Amino acid sequence: MESVAKMIDHSLLRPELTLDDVRAGCALAARYEVASVCVRPCDVTEAVALLHGTGVLVGTVAGFPHGSTTTAAKVAETALARAQGAAEIDMVLNIGRLRSGDVTTVESDIRAVVEAAGGATVKVILENAYLTDAEKIAGCEAAERAGAHYVKTSTGFAAGGATMADLALMRAAVSPKVKIKAAGGVRTLDILLAMADIGVTRFGATATAAILDDLAHRREHGRPQATATATDSGY
Amino acid sequence: MESVAKMIDHSLLRPELTLDDVRAGCALAARYEVASVCVRPCDVTEAVALLHGTGVLVGTVAGFPHGSTTTAAKVAETALARAQGAAEIDMVLNIGRLRSGDVTTVESDIRAVVEAAGGATVKVILENAYLTDAEKIAGCEAAERAGAHYVKTSTGFAAGGATMADLALMRAAVSPKVKIKAAGGVRTLDILLAMADIGVTRFGATATAAILDDLAHRREHGRPQATATATDSGY
Repeated sequence: MESVAKMIDHSLLRPELTLDDVRAGCALAARYEVASVCVRPCDVTEAVALLHGTGVLVGTVAGFPHGSTTTAAKVAETALARAQGAAEIDMVLNIGRLRSGDVTTVESDIRAVVEAAGGATVKVILENAYLTDAEKIAGCEAAERAGAHYVKTSTGFAAGGATMADLALMRAAVSPKVKIKAAGGVRTLDILLAMADIGVTRFGATATAAILDDLAHRREHGRPQATATATDSGY
Repeated sequence: MESVAKMIDHSLLRPELTLDDVRAGCALAARYEVASVCVRPCDVTEAVALLHGTGVLVGTVAGFPHGSTTTAAKVAETALARAQGAAEIDMVLNIGRLRSGDVTTVESDIRAVVEAAGGATVKVILENAYLTDAEKIAGCEAAERAGAHYVKTSTGFAAGGATMADLALMRAAVSPKVKIKAAGGVRTLDILLAMADIGVTRFGATATAAILDDLAHRREHGRPQATATATDSGY
């Protein structure tokens, strides 16, 4: 199960999550040995303490979910998160500037976060729901030029999430050294496997337990579970 | 019309707005002589330049829309926005901590923003859609203790916006020196007037033109427009 589990960022980003929800989510992430938790900035310190020694990384977000904060604010968030022990930063690019055709600003905004991250993994969220295909491609290219490690489809908070068409488009828009993360709507193992098939290597998910329980069941019984009995904590 | 117009913060917060959308929104705000525009942090400099001399204030947001950034990040956003000329700050309180019963953290988070604002108006967004009535009251009380000037119902980006019941509850939860702002769903003059009747003094709106055109029509003709012909730009 490890190879699939290590493709999952267990998402703990909903604004209404309590501290108990965050703690339960970190425990779940440790139990399933996922790649990382993706927590809210205010939870980084807690998550780093909880996951120390488990092999599960702590990631957080910058400029999330709208991407319309200043570059200075995204940089400050990134620097603080790194100082608090976050290993990965999922930033939202400036959607409005991308839609205005100002790719220069979009790129410099990303580059500043990459520099503030000091070598840590940076994933650039495009929020495809708001973009034309040409804008998605321009955003991917800007992210690669700025030194980002991943391009990511969505925050999970807009009207639409990851689609197969967008993932194929993004995979084609960047060179092989830039990886692809799908988020928003990755709710089942079948969806995850289909996306992995076209080159997606990281998944933002809240249905982590359901996905990995299904995988374990298939490996044991050679077929999917008849009914979805695996629990999804919903965050 | 001025008294109603001067109760409206024309909202320009949607992440997908282009620079042309922001410029058109600022021009509309100047034409209708509203209280302020509420722009994204990345647009403060542009809006301040555009609205100089018009009497329309520029406001922006901090920790928006989830409220789950760190206090340090909200303070940095507030200080930068003030330095760039923003006169009002609409901050989102830490929803998750409020729901965890950690009112101390919620209050100190707000107080730090009030201090960083240096006397500028601070409005505290509760995001009522996620809160019980007891949590709404606790949030209002924390905002007043922290020195905030307004409590505000919603960001406009959660599942629910301002309701009459919540506004009455919030009005009762704070002393008369704390004002109330309604946002999310303030789409018609009738809604605005009903809310003003129970003590709301500021409204976040995107349908500013429709609301104020309707008001002008009623004053001229003594009755509402037969059909809603006023245009709503939608942002």
